[in-house]
Amino acid sequence: VGLTVAVAGLGLIGGSLARTLVAGGVEVVAFDPDPATREAAEDAGIRAVHSVGALAATGPDVLILAVPLAAMTAVAREVAAALPGGSETVVTDVGSVKAPVRAAVEAAGLGDRYVGAHPMAGTELSGFEASDADLLPGAAWAVTVAPSTRPAHLLTVLGLVAGPLRGRARVVSDAAHDDAVALVSHVPHVLATELLNQVAAAPARDLALGLAAGSFRDGTRVAQTDPRRTEAMVAGNAAAVARALRAAAAELTALADALEASGGADSADSAHGGPLHTFFDAADPVRELLAVRADAAPAPSTDDPTSPVTVVPLTDPGWRERLTALGEEGAVVVGLDPAADPPTVSVRPGR
Amino acid sequence: VGLTVAVAGLGLIGGSLARTLVAGGVEVVAFDPDPATREAAEDAGIRAVHSVGALAATGPDVLILAVPLAAMTAVAREVAAALPGGSETVVTDVGSVKAPVRAAVEAAGLGDRYVGAHPMAGTELSGFEASDADLLPGAAWAVTVAPSTRPAHLLTVLGLVAGPLRGRARVVSDAAHDDAVALVSHVPHVLATELLNQVAAAPARDLALGLAAGSFRDGTRVAQTDPRRTEAMVAGNAAAVARALRAAAAELTALADALEASGGADSADSAHGGPLHTFFDAADPVRELLAVRADAAPAPSTDDPTSPVTVVPLTDPGWRERLTALGEEGAVVVGLDPAADPPTVSVRPGR
Repeated sequence: VGLTVAVAGLGLIGGSLARTLVAGGVEVVAFDPDPATREAAEDAGIRAVHSVGALAATGPDVLILAVPLAAMTAVAREVAAALPGGSETVVTDVGSVKAPVRAAVEAAGLGDRYVGAHPMAGTELSGFEASDADLLPGAAWAVTVAPSTRPAHLLTVLGLVAGPLRGRARVVSDAAHDDAVALVSHVPHVLATELLNQVAAAPARDLALGLAAGSFRDGTRVAQTDPRRTEAMVAGNAAAVARALRAAAAELTALADALEASGGADSADSAHGGPLHTFFDAADPVRELLAVRADAAPAPSTDDPTSPVTVVPLTDPGWRERLTALGEEGAVVVGLDPAADPPTVSVRPGR
Repeated sequence: VGLTVAVAGLGLIGGSLARTLVAGGVEVVAFDPDPATREAAEDAGIRAVHSVGALAATGPDVLILAVPLAAMTAVAREVAAALPGGSETVVTDVGSVKAPVRAAVEAAGLGDRYVGAHPMAGTELSGFEASDADLLPGAAWAVTVAPSTRPAHLLTVLGLVAGPLRGRARVVSDAAHDDAVALVSHVPHVLATELLNQVAAAPARDLALGLAAGSFRDGTRVAQTDPRRTEAMVAGNAAAVARALRAAAAELTALADALEASGGADSADSAHGGPLHTFFDAADPVRELLAVRADAAPAPSTDDPTSPVTVVPLTDPGWRERLTALGEEGAVVVGLDPAADPPTVSVRPGR
């Protein structure tokens, strides 16, 4: 690839990033505030420096913020203060929420060189010792753009994600990303927690746990890990999660109304069209999509090679809107041509 | 055991019951309305008769209603009409909700010989062809009593469940059972459905599915099967499920309020004691219990042999209240002495 990449933060994701890039022959320099982590990184063949300032001062082609959300603002300011004058460094990140990270980066004066990114990968573990060069390859990534995003910066980040990181990138807006992960990650964590909370508060708690079987085990798995981490993730996407939770509360209340009105299994609502049917059938189109997916090969090979490729030239006006509209329909980046005039990004419907 | 057992209905659970009992040397006679199912049962060594009336007319020691909830009332009436005069047949069932089944059995005039039962076992499949002699052994069972329950009838059903069926029985009230399974089975199915519904209705549905990973897959697994079956199960326990859903809606609304008030990850609520902490920490005692369970051996051997056994004599007043109070704390039946005077049931704290 010929890029130099700086990684700020060597936790589970930052460490895995650095390992994958080094394994792919990319020149990597990294920083972590923990000296033992820096030493472990050096042992793993990752060059480590002793401060964010020293990291930024290397003037890398790409600098990846892989720090906790709460640290994003402070680290972005350190980066801004230390980047060499005239450097073309592209700044990106791997945070689980995108609008607040953009705000932090813009507040540091780095907005015009920022492209957001989020790999959908993780484990129950954390820290560099849990990082793994095999965690990220094959993962779905959201790569986010805003009106200020420059074509060259987007192409650099997509080149890294779709290239040495071997990810499946979708180009979307911050808001679309934050809404989507609210639905498929943050709200599932909240509902799993709510299931545990109800049992914890029940008079017959021990009976309930004694009778619990598969549906409870699966429905609460992600709530059985560290509640602090879940809380931080949910709080970082507060607006989108709150909106989804209000919608869920309204639907659950309507279902409770319908159940009480039905008076049980023998009710007339067993005919089609009643409110119980409406609730239980609403997701039928998604059930069909998921059934298709369950039958299909693993994600990286599900692209249908016969499905149409759309080539989007990165020319104003409108390239961002066109690319994000395709990404928000699920289209995956399958080709980049930075040398074309204008440069292009190719996408294909993907799942 | 020396008992004769009649099984009405040879679906997944009824068929598995019959197979397990036959394998355990119990004399079984069964009925199913489907001639092909009766033939398959005969091939599996299960004697099959051609009507509910013929089944009841054999005057078995125990008759198990293993029919859908919607058929319970009609089948109970057929049983009542055909039981031989003076027969001591105990009637039980395997329905997923207990108060409505008791009402159906009482309406048929069988209330004074009824003991409720519910094995926590199942698969995604249904029908006799999916039944299996290995499905029920080791399962948790709720066995339910009411003020009219006679000691001898309870001992007969417990003898069957803890004996040839090799189940872990807890003696509880109908209401405690229905509340507990609402929390650990019915509400988890509803919340899994709600997660699918939100994605199905989202503008960025395809993006959301494209970015979905482990938490969404686990949280929606039980919603990906037949929504009609889920609806029937939930509707059969309408009152308890509706109550739990209202509580969930209130908690989710309060969490949405707290998230919107917090304005994101940097808020002051990251200090202990805020409403976000309250929500995410509420289940900590259950997390500890589940962590203990995850480390322990499989269910049938988790009883601590050093934990205290409580021997409950089945003498009025108060034996039912004493036994159900222990069962509702999770205590499992570990011994029966029907020949003692008075007869006894022994229980031990279990999980």
